Amino acid sequence: MHAPTLEDIERASARISGHVTRTPCLHSRTLSRLTGAQIWIKFENLQFTASFKERGALNRLLQLRPEQRAVGVSAMSAGNHGQAVAYHATRLGIPSTIVMPRFTPYVKVEQTRLHGAEVILQGDTLSDAYDCVQELTQRRGLIFVHPYDDSAVIAGQGTIGLELLEAVPEMDVIVVPIGGGGLIGGIATAVKARAPHVRIFGVQTQGYPSMVAALKGETLIAHGDTIAEGIAVKAAGRITTQIIRTLVEDIIVVDETTLEHAVALFLNVEKTVAEGAGAAALAAVLKEQQRFAGKKVVVLLSGGNMDPRLLASVIMRELVRENRIVRLHIPIADHPGVLSQVATLIAGRGGNILEVYHQRLALDMPAKSANLQVVFEARDSRHADEVVEVLRAAGFRPTIAPP
Amino acid sequence: MHAPTLEDIERASARISGHVTRTPCLHSRTLSRLTGAQIWIKFENLQFTASFKERGALNRLLQLRPEQRAVGVSAMSAGNHGQAVAYHATRLGIPSTIVMPRFTPYVKVEQTRLHGAEVILQGDTLSDAYDCVQELTQRRGLIFVHPYDDSAVIAGQGTIGLELLEAVPEMDVIVVPIGGGGLIGGIATAVKARAPHVRIFGVQTQGYPSMVAALKGETLIAHGDTIAEGIAVKAAGRITTQIIRTLVEDIIVVDETTLEHAVALFLNVEKTVAEGAGAAALAAVLKEQQRFAGKKVVVLLSGGNMDPRLLASVIMRELVRENRIVRLHIPIADHPGVLSQVATLIAGRGGNILEVYHQRLALDMPAKSANLQVVFEARDSRHADEVVEVLRAAGFRPTIAPP
Repeated sequence: MHAPTLEDIERASARISGHVTRTPCLHSRTLSRLTGAQIWIKFENLQFTASFKERGALNRLLQLRPEQRAVGVSAMSAGNHGQAVAYHATRLGIPSTIVMPRFTPYVKVEQTRLHGAEVILQGDTLSDAYDCVQELTQRRGLIFVHPYDDSAVIAGQGTIGLELLEAVPEMDVIVVPIGGGGLIGGIATAVKARAPHVRIFGVQTQGYPSMVAALKGETLIAHGDTIAEGIAVKAAGRITTQIIRTLVEDIIVVDETTLEHAVALFLNVEKTVAEGAGAAALAAVLKEQQRFAGKKVVVLLSGGNMDPRLLASVIMRELVRENRIVRLHIPIADHPGVLSQVATLIAGRGGNILEVYHQRLALDMPAKSANLQVVFEARDSRHADEVVEVLRAAGFRPTIAPP
Repeated sequence: MHAPTLEDIERASARISGHVTRTPCLHSRTLSRLTGAQIWIKFENLQFTASFKERGALNRLLQLRPEQRAVGVSAMSAGNHGQAVAYHATRLGIPSTIVMPRFTPYVKVEQTRLHGAEVILQGDTLSDAYDCVQELTQRRGLIFVHPYDDSAVIAGQGTIGLELLEAVPEMDVIVVPIGGGGLIGGIATAVKARAPHVRIFGVQTQGYPSMVAALKGETLIAHGDTIAEGIAVKAAGRITTQIIRTLVEDIIVVDETTLEHAVALFLNVEKTVAEGAGAAALAAVLKEQQRFAGKKVVVLLSGGNMDPRLLASVIMRELVRENRIVRLHIPIADHPGVLSQVATLIAGRGGNILEVYHQRLALDMPAKSANLQVVFEARDSRHADEVVEVLRAAGFRPTIAPP
């Protein structure tokens, strides 16, 4: 397999045009003010299946020969790639089989089935599922659509680069999340060929810096949970590694806290849902502000398929981080009226109590006392301090639990 | 004051062009499939201050005489109108004073200050704040910008109608939330003048059907909390009532559950944040599906300024409603090992336990038993039933707590 050329990407663009959304790329005044850079956002979360993956999958499917179309395609994915393949294969009348690990959330299974794929749940890990899809592909004579290490797939993702050159011709920098590297590989190929002065930065997460490792010739020891499961890829692609080594300026590694903050900013400021991986590029700009200050920066919002419960949790954690939801521990004498007094003090200062909990078994406290835990909502950090101050003034000794 | 004409709206459009966003109006395949209508969404939540209010406010500000500009403007608003006036007044070099009730969340106060307004917190209710702004306006000789009962403001909102005529010329129906009636009044005036066959529907909430009451000549007895505080208006406008009586087909009244569901759909399907009032039009289409089946319907997403904690709460409540988060009450014998057994059964079937609570003081139970409350997350409703079934098969008698 070879790396795609600018011409491959131009042909991909003509091929998929009209069947994927030409997503908006909009300037954000507020994010520009917050970061000190001039920020444009490319909204790939507005594709029908809510991620950029449709571009690569469709470009691959459209190049199948009639007899290949008749037999059908396979893919392995618990996420966006599977939905993209299923949706466009069905649209084109091509049978598709998507293998997913057994633990895949039913919503994703159902959504992929709804797009018309046969879904096979197999394997306890992604690597088991991969073995399964290989075996199945061989046995049934299917065409396997790789999520990133495939020239046609990379060329499809590269069509975003052509759109950026038209939408923001004055851009200095593009920041792109890296999982296997297909997205950045395609974009870098297109943009560097036409506008070599534009610098391309990749982004990975602390737990899964697989491309950083691949560039150094090291093997990644991946670990930990991340909200950016879309780029939690253990093995970088061969073709993509080669492109990135040549065309990408640097890879920025972001931590989970910054990722969560970026998801919250997209939601609160831009009113748009980014999944963890989709917010990685913004996280990188937030983390390395001095590097991008004053530059014209395109931030690639790659996808919006965030689990609702995780999204709710990210919103609440951001409020805790902003000190708008505060958890207090208050040692109290265990007799009637104390809770009433605390509640009255907090309410009197405008705090909104969300949860109350009495802890009586803590051995670091006298037997006749209790530890009162109160969670309250404040209008902002300053207001939270005022509420705590009122309690102190009344003789309580509240401590604020760390976020 | 007179009602604006089509010509007023055309002039407003030319006046504000380039200074408010010409927001996208996009077809939604998934919402169309869910409702049986052909659904387009007009994304007014993508305005800079995240609501349509900028159009009316700006059209009003641009018609001030130089000496009026020099003295400045006032407004009363705890929400979108205040931000719209503050932002555009500052941009035009006009001093602005926004009066808000004292209980207004600090985030909104700060945001309005950030837009350059002087913010005055006064009054415990909106009506107190209204008295304050009237007194202040008189004393300082300011120009009061009414949020809806003003011909220039209505004409500004009407520019949306002109955009819809261009974006979806084939539309049959437009559904628009009604607070004071400025938005629907403007849109109806523009659209009915150019395309009289298009039918316009308004939407209000169960607790605040003020325009429904005004059309009947009744006085509204408003009550209750609503997530659509942007349209929880007690007094319909005089000009707007007159327009709506003539041009609007009907007003659909929606309940809170449907409103919450509509907010969740915008978030989960369209990846966009709608505030409660912003989701009212979609709620109306969901509620009266037979009425809109097969029609080409524009749903007006009027704003996206949703409090983050409320948004998180709406997401979680939707999961409870979908049976993806389930609360079980399980009577158990109070001896060691029972919780372990329950936890093992739930985990073995793939349920994810979120909360556990032992209730030992319920008098409807024998003294040696306890009531175990378990909250678990399932992949979907069918999976939740499977988990409960496994507990039953093991001899437990779980009851599912209603959402």
